[in-house]
Amino acid sequence: MATKRVKEILSWYRSDNAGTLANIARVLNHGRLGGTGRMVILPVDQGFEHGPARSFAKNPQAYDPRYHFELAIEAGCNAYAAPLGFIEAGAADYAGDMPLILKLNNSDSLFSNADPAPAITGSVGDALRLGCSAIGFTIYPGSANRNDMYGEIRELSEEAKSAGLAVVIWSYPRGSGISKKGETAVDVVAYGAQIAAQLGAHFIKVKPPTEDIEQDEAKKVYQSEKIAVGTLAERVRHVVQSSFGGRRIVIFSGGATKGNAALLEEIRQIAEGGGFGSIVGRNAFQRPRTEAIALLHEIMEIYQS
Amino acid sequence: MATKRVKEILSWYRSDNAGTLANIARVLNHGRLGGTGRMVILPVDQGFEHGPARSFAKNPQAYDPRYHFELAIEAGCNAYAAPLGFIEAGAADYAGDMPLILKLNNSDSLFSNADPAPAITGSVGDALRLGCSAIGFTIYPGSANRNDMYGEIRELSEEAKSAGLAVVIWSYPRGSGISKKGETAVDVVAYGAQIAAQLGAHFIKVKPPTEDIEQDEAKKVYQSEKIAVGTLAERVRHVVQSSFGGRRIVIFSGGATKGNAALLEEIRQIAEGGGFGSIVGRNAFQRPRTEAIALLHEIMEIYQS
Amino acid sequence: MATKRVKEILSWYRSDNAGTLANIARVLNHGRLGGTGRMVILPVDQGFEHGPARSFAKNPQAYDPRYHFELAIEAGCNAYAAPLGFIEAGAADYAGDMPLILKLNNSDSLFSNADPAPAITGSVGDALRLGCSAIGFTIYPGSANRNDMYGEIRELSEEAKSAGLAVVIWSYPRGSGISKKGETAVDVVAYGAQIAAQLGAHFIKVKPPTEDIEQDEAKKVYQSEKIAVGTLAERVRHVVQSSFGGRRIVIFSGGATKGNAALLEEIRQIAEGGGFGSIVGRNAFQRPRTEAIALLHEIMEIYQS
Amino acid sequence: MATKRVKEILSWYRSDNAGTLANIARVLNHGRLGGTGRMVILPVDQGFEHGPARSFAKNPQAYDPRYHFELAIEAGCNAYAAPLGFIEAGAADYAGDMPLILKLNNSDSLFSNADPAPAITGSVGDALRLGCSAIGFTIYPGSANRNDMYGEIRELSEEAKSAGLAVVIWSYPRGSGISKKGETAVDVVAYGAQIAAQLGAHFIKVKPPTEDIEQDEAKKVYQSEKIAVGTLAERVRHVVQSSFGGRRIVIFSGGATKGNAALLEEIRQIAEGGGFGSIVGRNAFQRPRTEAIALLHEIMEIYQS
Amino acid sequence: MATKRVKEILSWYRSDNAGTLANIARVLNHGRLGGTGRMVILPVDQGFEHGPARSFAKNPQAYDPRYHFELAIEAGCNAYAAPLGFIEAGAADYAGDMPLILKLNNSDSLFSNADPAPAITGSVGDALRLGCSAIGFTIYPGSANRNDMYGEIRELSEEAKSAGLAVVIWSYPRGSGISKKGETAVDVVAYGAQIAAQLGAHFIKVKPPTEDIEQDEAKKVYQSEKIAVGTLAERVRHVVQSSFGGRRIVIFSGGATKGNAALLEEIRQIAEGGGFGSIVGRNAFQRPRTEAIALLHEIMEIYQS
Repeated sequence: MATKRVKEILSWYRSDNAGTLANIARVLNHGRLGGTGRMVILPVDQGFEHGPARSFAKNPQAYDPRYHFELAIEAGCNAYAAPLGFIEAGAADYAGDMPLILKLNNSDSLFSNADPAPAITGSVGDALRLGCSAIGFTIYPGSANRNDMYGEIRELSEEAKSAGLAVVIWSYPRGSGISKKGETAVDVVAYGAQIAAQLGAHFIKVKPPTEDIEQDEAKKVYQSEKIAVGTLAERVRHVVQSSFGGRRIVIFSGGATKGNAALLEEIRQIAEGGGFGSIVGRNAFQRPRTEAIALLHEIMEIYQS
Repeated sequence: MATKRVKEILSWYRSDNAGTLANIARVLNHGRLGGTGRMVILPVDQGFEHGPARSFAKNPQAYDPRYHFELAIEAGCNAYAAPLGFIEAGAADYAGDMPLILKLNNSDSLFSNADPAPAITGSVGDALRLGCSAIGFTIYPGSANRNDMYGEIRELSEEAKSAGLAVVIWSYPRGSGISKKGETAVDVVAYGAQIAAQLGAHFIKVKPPTEDIEQDEAKKVYQSEKIAVGTLAERVRHVVQSSFGGRRIVIFSGGATKGNAALLEEIRQIAEGGGFGSIVGRNAFQRPRTEAIALLHEIMEIYQS
Repeated sequence: MATKRVKEILSWYRSDNAGTLANIARVLNHGRLGGTGRMVILPVDQGFEHGPARSFAKNPQAYDPRYHFELAIEAGCNAYAAPLGFIEAGAADYAGDMPLILKLNNSDSLFSNADPAPAITGSVGDALRLGCSAIGFTIYPGSANRNDMYGEIRELSEEAKSAGLAVVIWSYPRGSGISKKGETAVDVVAYGAQIAAQLGAHFIKVKPPTEDIEQDEAKKVYQSEKIAVGTLAERVRHVVQSSFGGRRIVIFSGGATKGNAALLEEIRQIAEGGGFGSIVGRNAFQRPRTEAIALLHEIMEIYQS
Repeated sequence: MATKRVKEILSWYRSDNAGTLANIARVLNHGRLGGTGRMVILPVDQGFEHGPARSFAKNPQAYDPRYHFELAIEAGCNAYAAPLGFIEAGAADYAGDMPLILKLNNSDSLFSNADPAPAITGSVGDALRLGCSAIGFTIYPGSANRNDMYGEIRELSEEAKSAGLAVVIWSYPRGSGISKKGETAVDVVAYGAQIAAQLGAHFIKVKPPTEDIEQDEAKKVYQSEKIAVGTLAERVRHVVQSSFGGRRIVIFSGGATKGNAALLEEIRQIAEGGGFGSIVGRNAFQRPRTEAIALLHEIMEIYQS
Repeated sequence: MATKRVKEILSWYRSDNAGTLANIARVLNHGRLGGTGRMVILPVDQGFEHGPARSFAKNPQAYDPRYHFELAIEAGCNAYAAPLGFIEAGAADYAGDMPLILKLNNSDSLFSNADPAPAITGSVGDALRLGCSAIGFTIYPGSANRNDMYGEIRELSEEAKSAGLAVVIWSYPRGSGISKKGETAVDVVAYGAQIAAQLGAHFIKVKPPTEDIEQDEAKKVYQSEKIAVGTLAERVRHVVQSSFGGRRIVIFSGGATKGNAALLEEIRQIAEGGGFGSIVGRNAFQRPRTEAIALLHEIMEIYQS
């Protein structure tokens, strides 16, 4: 049966049907962190987003879609997220082994755009036939094309929820509306999390925010209200608060590959700030399997303690 | 049973089906002003529109979506209006406690545009499954993109009306078609109200108009016909007249937070001018709860007297 | 805000969406018994079921559909239930005054059948456009045609629930499968309530059960388990227990017109046995209006004490 | 503009949309009786129901569908009602000349059945493309197949109303549930009118009732309540009362051809009893055109006085 | 990760999509027997099928739908199967705690029929919104109405499989085509299992077969081919073989309540004969909770050894 903490988290989503609640629970209950209310998710969309060599050449086993299913399973992640092709390539072979998140939109890097807009690459029907627990979707607040994305996830989300699926939104501000540095500014990350929550996300994924504050109107408030954003833990706490006062699941990406020490320190701060977990992609699959599993276990231990 | 005044207001909407009439009545009959034909609505879309810190940091309880349901209920507002995420986060827990208005489009501030255009963020199906009495929608007359908005609300409105829901239009002129000052010019506000009425709105929300007159062709008429626009009360009267001779419900926003005295004087003029009520957001939820309730009660008393 | 008791009742229906919960709450919160968790509903389908003269000649004002709306409103009933024509004839004039239940099937008495089967006479779309809080439906367990009814309400119920409406099932065993006396036998009434609950009803309406036990297999269990069915209160308690251990709303009809003393004694026993309320049709509308209101108030007082 | 009486009649149908109200008004406002609230309708479905020779041989011009359009127009009837073929054969030629009622079901006499059930012979789409103001539909209460008819008109009626059409129900009790004499017994005719009203009809057509009372349960009430049914006028008054207390339009057929004196006396009684008008088929089109027009004018004069 | 045995079982269903495989795996992996390829399922449809007192009076806690969820969870069953009402009454509260099977058809005992035919009482959409892993459906081979059932499950099964759900068929031969004794005759049970398999079931539920052979044509073969049916283990082996050579999951019901010794001996024979498990309803929920759990654990131990 669900732990007290999982029951508490589910109580935030009472407008959802029992199917969606069960799928949120499935993700929360799976893996090494199952039942703690904390999560580590393995996402692998870099093949689509950055190209295969940039993504997989460092660890060529990772070209094979089965590798990622097995990595997520062996490491005891809560879920595995990927675009249609990668999910199709393993969903039957690993059926029932792991909660799956089908990413329904993706961007490639063969065309670059000041105002990015991902392509729709999967459907709710695909998620059902492939046995996924959730759909995933990326929005780019700050892009001139953001409204198209908001409209798309609105429609997909209504369909997913009525079929009992959960909804994960990757909120990654970027585009001509904000500066490059602003993409991870704490006000922008918090705002991105709020937008995802208002769009009805059950799980919100954002980047670890920096100390920068992008918007002048926001800066006034951060100063006058003395919002603490000096440490990553403080900033994470602020982002979590910005996500419906802590009543939405917010998880953080690891971003570009980095050294173990730096990464683990980041995780410690996320955990301290009340973040619900991490989504660890490149830092996991671009290392040799045993190293990756060891690292993921270290991350999970931080969240467990 | 409905009061004489509520019956009179309902008689203006005889082309609507009984379901829509019942939902208009629900809003008019609820709360402290129930039955008077006057209304105070709590709207909270600033998290989406301005970002979380700018909206909620002054009163951090307001990060929690439950806060706003409870504020609206305790203060005795007629209805609570918010985007999908905020409504989903409380609709089941507060089921039946308060008429709800689901805002079906929203703009964020991470991208700014001379010609703004909100994203569609909810559906009529969402409004039904969440037990809402009305859909809400923002139009920006004056924007190069206005026709998209008019077309979207036309379609949503037809669907909402056939399902027995009411329609609230926020008419906020802005965009490259008019000057910044013109956004609240009395001719423009009156024109915006007329457009909302012509689009089939049951409730129309506008900003309190200034004495400015934006359009030259309009100025001639205001002068030749000696339309009184010297006081806010006169301007409100003119806007109400411009909304089908007073046969549509027109309510006024409070705009940016301001001192109590200024706000209450504004309400007095709106009431004197025949305005049907106020929609009070930031002036309510950015204060401590008891202060907010006291202020809302003062506002309601003005409308009652 | 909802009372503790209403919150408790709503907690039994957590698989339902917020719209359905709001409509269940609307019925529970309306009228003199609002908030107590007890209910009195005025149903008027006798015009269709028994013909106009048999139904209305005793109190000719009752030929007029407005009469019943006004009776339900003045008496402070929780809801008014009727077929399409009667609801259409008042839904706009009394919009928002009273929760309405649209009965979606009805039988007439110009053709009688050992195995009765009602006609479908309304739709979920009708319920929405007329502003109803619930659909009503009659099943005849014991009829050779029962499976058609079960299949019809299954489909209507799924549609109603997804549109945020509540579902009321009148479970009236009759037909060639059971004896005439068996129609109100305690085992049969309890079984009829269970079937309605398993079909997904939010509100279940049954007849007050007699001490008879119809089915031999059941009789053995009533005897061996010493199920107390000696008084009406005991039988009501058993029927409520048979409806998901008391976690479904079960209300009782008054049946044919009878003297006040007999009727009120019956109500007292229903209340004592934990029944959630009464549905009082002929005993209300076949008397002069003031007498009817006085009687309904007496009934409500019993449920309130 | 509509007369006071027409406005009053329209006020009974406030749950209907403006399109349906306009079509009810069109019928009420057309022809010699336009605006009086009384009506004479020419129906010609006998070709389908009884065969061509039985219907048209007495007055061979009547084989030609144009004849009936012209008869209705020249006589100043309120509307002309016929099956698909007859309407298609003149709708374009006489477009705009006369409110049309498309009968959507019909029975033929080449197969006879103790429990009659008409065929569906037209659609709401047909009614719209042919410019009709209303759909017409026949139900046979008392037939074992009645529920099919009730279900069909329910569905057609919902569709027609949402497209702004009016609904006319011919309620002709017959079938194995009642005796031959019972088909026009006053209790049965009143019951048939009630069923049509509960099914949502705007116009109800019944046969002039006889003094017989068919059902034992009804007889008791007619006696105990001393319902006056001695004269046709009294019986008409009772049927009108049985149709929502006089708040539904009830018109009476003339039945088989008869002498002028008998027919006119019948009309006088219908008018005296508060009937809303007559539907005169065979008594009109089976006579030479001038005689028919003279007779129709005499009938209209009775209703006008 | 799935065990070798679960992988082997999944390999029999390679034509199914990954979603269906994941749901089959969920059932196989859950509970005390998770991963063994053996299963114990708690089914509770007796409230609908036999009435509430006959089902729950022996252990009155069982009137409450929550009881069965908790019993299945505590005992470590693989899944819980019930009709719509029982599943709705707990699916949100126990979301994610246990694989659920929504029974989509049910029969009640208030009408009995030589040729039984259940009513449709749920849909694939219901199963999705309630978070179920499978739909359940009963067929009655031998009934004159069997083809309706086969047609219904074919359609529901196609829909369920495309949405990633699994399909459980209860194959219970009965009806005028076979004798009472023949319902559990070994040839008939084996034939019923084959029909379920041919209809595309993933899980097949049958009754433990007796030594009887019902059909003469079959008897000849059983004799000539010396098919061993002397012991229950042999008969179970034959039924499993009859279900696609053992490549379909076949489970056995316990039938009416009986003594522990008899029941456990039956289970031992089923296990010995290669049966995949048991579906234990009345023998579980009609005992006190601790006794029931102890018994279920004993059953699971037999299957585990």
